[in-house]
Amino acid sequence: MLKFKVIKKDASSGARLGELETAHWKCKTPIFMPVGTQATVKTLTPEDLYEIGADIILSNTYHLYLRPGADLVEKAGGLHKFMNWKRGILTDSGGFQVFSLSKLRKITDEGVYFNSHIDGSRHFLTPQKVMEIEQKLGADIAMCFDECAPYPCTYEYAKEALRRTSLWAKICREHHKREDQALFGIVQGSIFDDLRRKSAEDIVALDFPGYAVGGLSVGEPKSEMYRILELTHTLLPEDKPRYLMGVGAPEDLVEGVKRGIDMFDCVLPTRLARHGTAFTHQGRITVRNAGFAEDFSPVDPWCDCYVCKNYSRAYIRHLIKAEEILASRLLSYHNIYFLTSLMAKIRQALAEGRFGEFYDNFFRQYKP
Amino acid sequence: MLKFKVIKKDASSGARLGELETAHWKCKTPIFMPVGTQATVKTLTPEDLYEIGADIILSNTYHLYLRPGADLVEKAGGLHKFMNWKRGILTDSGGFQVFSLSKLRKITDEGVYFNSHIDGSRHFLTPQKVMEIEQKLGADIAMCFDECAPYPCTYEYAKEALRRTSLWAKICREHHKREDQALFGIVQGSIFDDLRRKSAEDIVALDFPGYAVGGLSVGEPKSEMYRILELTHTLLPEDKPRYLMGVGAPEDLVEGVKRGIDMFDCVLPTRLARHGTAFTHQGRITVRNAGFAEDFSPVDPWCDCYVCKNYSRAYIRHLIKAEEILASRLLSYHNIYFLTSLMAKIRQALAEGRFGEFYDNFFRQYKP
Repeated sequence: MLKFKVIKKDASSGARLGELETAHWKCKTPIFMPVGTQATVKTLTPEDLYEIGADIILSNTYHLYLRPGADLVEKAGGLHKFMNWKRGILTDSGGFQVFSLSKLRKITDEGVYFNSHIDGSRHFLTPQKVMEIEQKLGADIAMCFDECAPYPCTYEYAKEALRRTSLWAKICREHHKREDQALFGIVQGSIFDDLRRKSAEDIVALDFPGYAVGGLSVGEPKSEMYRILELTHTLLPEDKPRYLMGVGAPEDLVEGVKRGIDMFDCVLPTRLARHGTAFTHQGRITVRNAGFAEDFSPVDPWCDCYVCKNYSRAYIRHLIKAEEILASRLLSYHNIYFLTSLMAKIRQALAEGRFGEFYDNFFRQYKP
Repeated sequence: MLKFKVIKKDASSGARLGELETAHWKCKTPIFMPVGTQATVKTLTPEDLYEIGADIILSNTYHLYLRPGADLVEKAGGLHKFMNWKRGILTDSGGFQVFSLSKLRKITDEGVYFNSHIDGSRHFLTPQKVMEIEQKLGADIAMCFDECAPYPCTYEYAKEALRRTSLWAKICREHHKREDQALFGIVQGSIFDDLRRKSAEDIVALDFPGYAVGGLSVGEPKSEMYRILELTHTLLPEDKPRYLMGVGAPEDLVEGVKRGIDMFDCVLPTRLARHGTAFTHQGRITVRNAGFAEDFSPVDPWCDCYVCKNYSRAYIRHLIKAEEILASRLLSYHNIYFLTSLMAKIRQALAEGRFGEFYDNFFRQYKP
């Protein structure tokens, strides 16, 4: 179950305003999806996220499969009920984590053998198994099992990974039965134009209700990422949502929207928060720095979130220095709000036909 | 500034329903005050605590003096503004922490030399200095600097500590000028009846707007604590609030109220939360235990708090195992709610003249 329509297109870029409806939630796009790796967006409750304006959150299949296990989540009545979340959820496939987190991997066309990053136990994930897990978790949107090539990698490596990703996508398509869940295909191919073309061809041929661009933001220069997005933009069907995986820097959201992306996710806002760093309209600031010790202004004077209305940089710096959890909570709230409100402003600009102007203004102020 | 009146007394015990008004807040007593050691009740926001029903929170002078410093808090506009708290605040005097946390102490009649538990730096706290600090922090209620004798200790040690506590109370009384802040005296004397009598005499003679019973819940048997409370209850003026410092076990709140206590504080609910333990109407449970892995019932089926309405033991156990901060946050919320709602039920029972019945029912269900 997924409905998507493009409401309005920007005249001079790939940007578009859309409407996305899944089993649990209906929202306008483009959107940023906060990450709740282990069935919780770190430090925050669902109510915080509703207040922040999050429409869909992402949860990680790899993590939930290892702990607490898909069967437990299914017994709880699915991920929504387990974690008390009433809007949309997207689960990734574990493909990225198997390659980035686990050890002693062995990969074949059947699947991936790997050791758990938690207890070292041996596991084997196949596209069939991943579909079984994701259907038990019961998110609104599931992702196909894919092989995400690292950066840099050789042309041959990237080609092999895309071949396998296409093979697995076909298997996932066949094994996905849950009608209240939409399955998205993933385009791989690293930074090689012809491989991206080939991957998009393979994946689009399988006719998914939505498409992701994977394998970006893995260490390549930003210019390469933008170039690939300009290409994939032309390769993916216009009437389906496009999701750029793992991207969450404010400048990349704006650049991504410009290149036709409708959905983003990233751990960046919560991870930065845990390191005492905040987004502001002028760029990032490290609130833990001594220079903010007596700064009684808000984290971002141009922000109207709960945190910026009620707390000072000096107070949050004190919490960081005192190793108080509230520091992470307040900065997580602010950083996610910063991205969701950035997306809301982008949608507003698209609705009013002034995305180009918004783009220019954004980069006049924001220093990445 | 402090107004207190006893509204209703229980016919067959020392329990009483009161009304307490300080510079920032007015509430009924008896109350439990959550502890916000470093200008934050761990993991929670002020809004959480309003929802929970907290009227006054406690913050620690020793910690705030060392970090971020009283001058900074004063510059921020005082503790209320610094931490965004709009109800009552009580600051302790640091007396307890100097003895329990710091190292290389040296104590004289002038004050206490000690090394910071944070960076080892050398400090000297005197009653004069503590008054200066507490007035800068600007809580509604400040506490006199006292010497809290450990348990067990000799009669001579306890006698010397009470002599010094009386001496310092006099100095604090003289140096406290802030009219929007009430200064409470502290009765010491360990578990020795005649020393408690002597201490109460000395302190009451100084005519404070409120009195605390200190030096209990420091390791002595509960029967000793209850016995001392029965004594102090007869020694303190009936028209002033009585505060039992550092006590927060549910059974001790009920027993304390029975013996005329109006105010309590303790880190117990938040500390237990961080260790995965929750209060329930039947006693404590350790949610992290494997037995709760597939228990989809609320933490406490008789509790109507946000956490018990929305989350299962299984989910919270998962968060604990996954080392997610939300576990501490949810259990802190529940545990503090458990104590504040226990106090609300006690006030209700007192208002309706059925405290004795409440007491019996409580202990029929709750197993300490």
